Amino acid sequence: MAIHLAAISAMQPFVFEELRKRGFVVHEVQHGKSWQEWVRELAPVRDEIRGVLSGGMSGLPRELIEALPKLEICAIHGVGLETTDLAAAKARGIVVTTAPVLFDDVADHALALALAACRRLVEADRFVRAGHWRKGRMGLGTSFWGKRYGIIGLGRIGSALARRLEGFGGQIAYCDPVPKADVGYARYETPLALAAASDILFLCAAGTPGGGPIVTRAVLEALGPRGVFVNIARGWLVEEEALVELLASGRLGAAGLDVFAREPEVPERLLALDNVVLAPHIASSTQECMRRMGECVIANIVEYFAHGRAVTPVSY
Amino acid sequence: MAIHLAAISAMQPFVFEELRKRGFVVHEVQHGKSWQEWVRELAPVRDEIRGVLSGGMSGLPRELIEALPKLEICAIHGVGLETTDLAAAKARGIVVTTAPVLFDDVADHALALALAACRRLVEADRFVRAGHWRKGRMGLGTSFWGKRYGIIGLGRIGSALARRLEGFGGQIAYCDPVPKADVGYARYETPLALAAASDILFLCAAGTPGGGPIVTRAVLEALGPRGVFVNIARGWLVEEEALVELLASGRLGAAGLDVFAREPEVPERLLALDNVVLAPHIASSTQECMRRMGECVIANIVEYFAHGRAVTPVSY
Repeated sequence: MAIHLAAISAMQPFVFEELRKRGFVVHEVQHGKSWQEWVRELAPVRDEIRGVLSGGMSGLPRELIEALPKLEICAIHGVGLETTDLAAAKARGIVVTTAPVLFDDVADHALALALAACRRLVEADRFVRAGHWRKGRMGLGTSFWGKRYGIIGLGRIGSALARRLEGFGGQIAYCDPVPKADVGYARYETPLALAAASDILFLCAAGTPGGGPIVTRAVLEALGPRGVFVNIARGWLVEEEALVELLASGRLGAAGLDVFAREPEVPERLLALDNVVLAPHIASSTQECMRRMGECVIANIVEYFAHGRAVTPVSY
Repeated sequence: MAIHLAAISAMQPFVFEELRKRGFVVHEVQHGKSWQEWVRELAPVRDEIRGVLSGGMSGLPRELIEALPKLEICAIHGVGLETTDLAAAKARGIVVTTAPVLFDDVADHALALALAACRRLVEADRFVRAGHWRKGRMGLGTSFWGKRYGIIGLGRIGSALARRLEGFGGQIAYCDPVPKADVGYARYETPLALAAASDILFLCAAGTPGGGPIVTRAVLEALGPRGVFVNIARGWLVEEEALVELLASGRLGAAGLDVFAREPEVPERLLALDNVVLAPHIASSTQECMRRMGECVIANIVEYFAHGRAVTPVSY
């Protein structure tokens, strides 16, 4: 008897093709909507669905767990867990897997944003394309090398970023609830203390559901008018209104932002600023990474239903 | 008696201010023009000028040497020497100095261009600002980490770039007339062989006057439709027409270009392409680097006229 899966997040077409080839029935639900709509769309097959294919942003909300009585596994095409109710999953014995294969791409993207913000690269491209070079030089950027780099969250992404930063001759420091024994980087107790000691501040922390913003107005003010803020984590971990206001008024130097509080909405005022580099949540959006994440989703589903063991389960 | 200097290249205002404060007379000539115009503008003071303040692109052409009979020193605000007639300078005993303090900034910029080209960062910013995110996702980029990096010219810029690339888990190879004994990177005999073995090719070579292009059509074709080319050296070291054609037709994957054959002119066809990141020759254009370069120019002039010895003279 065929195993039914519900896909509530966008992924590369090969994932569904491969699963169908292996005999699974994949119900593709319209993406980017709320759990209410997923539940409504899946109502006709609610008693068939044994697996959910989700994303780092959609996760596995409690309401979806409750709506799918036969659910056994949720394979997440990403690493975020803030929208997944792990307690409810555990209570039902539902296996949750992530795709822990994106850290290097995300770290690259963090560095790309930081370099572009410091060196005014996006502005430079606009300058050239608009024909302004013929009329004069553009303003100077800021050096990236040799600076004080602060990393909030020295997990797998933060560590991959730190490895890259070691080639730039600056000082690396971090803030993380868990001190890392095997690194030589200075550790600060709070994001505020780290920001005050940093030229370039990277937010690499995982989002914890229910927690407030990590990067508050005070943290951004401590970073200051020459400071650069980079966010490849989650938009709601930052006081976004303060971020926009400080960037617009020059009290924060520049920013490279891949994530926003209400994606795909981006604060209107940011769109007019030159001192910000904006990206549409693409830190893991490379062909290579999407391939690996898709393969990870397939492997988890196939292994689980063949042998009862997922490949990269989350421990809860 | 005051010492007269001719400034034929743009630099930060503090350079001229500091020199004037120290008693020098600085004649600022309109920048960005030809040696004919410099010579014409300097004609009234030609017998007074004992020092020239120039840039990496303007240099010290033979004609300027001939027009300034009292010239003793040329302090270059940069490192390029392809427009400087070193033989003529040597024959007259004119000291030529460069500002060898920009390597790290240029290496940073090379990496910024490469990351932006791979990760489609400039396109991403345009995508967000145009409001397209609300309508869907943009196309996928290419991973930067773990690739085969090829460096043409493993001098001070190329070496600074290689140090940075070591954090990205790929393979570093190079092509340089002089084998570097102290590095573990594979060396290729020709740019063509290096390009064929590279995913991302960086041109970091110094321009040699009279030499033809180093990066020919064949080199770019060897790099291929998935390859990325980065140029922070000189535009005329590349067959630019071939570069444009291959990028436009997809036979070269992407490019990050800081320099062009006929600056500030940029080939019109490039302005419409999404797979290219364009910058207006700003690899060393940071506040920190301009400050250091200016201080280097000042130190060379001051030391030379005080003690007869420049600080960073070119050996010829």
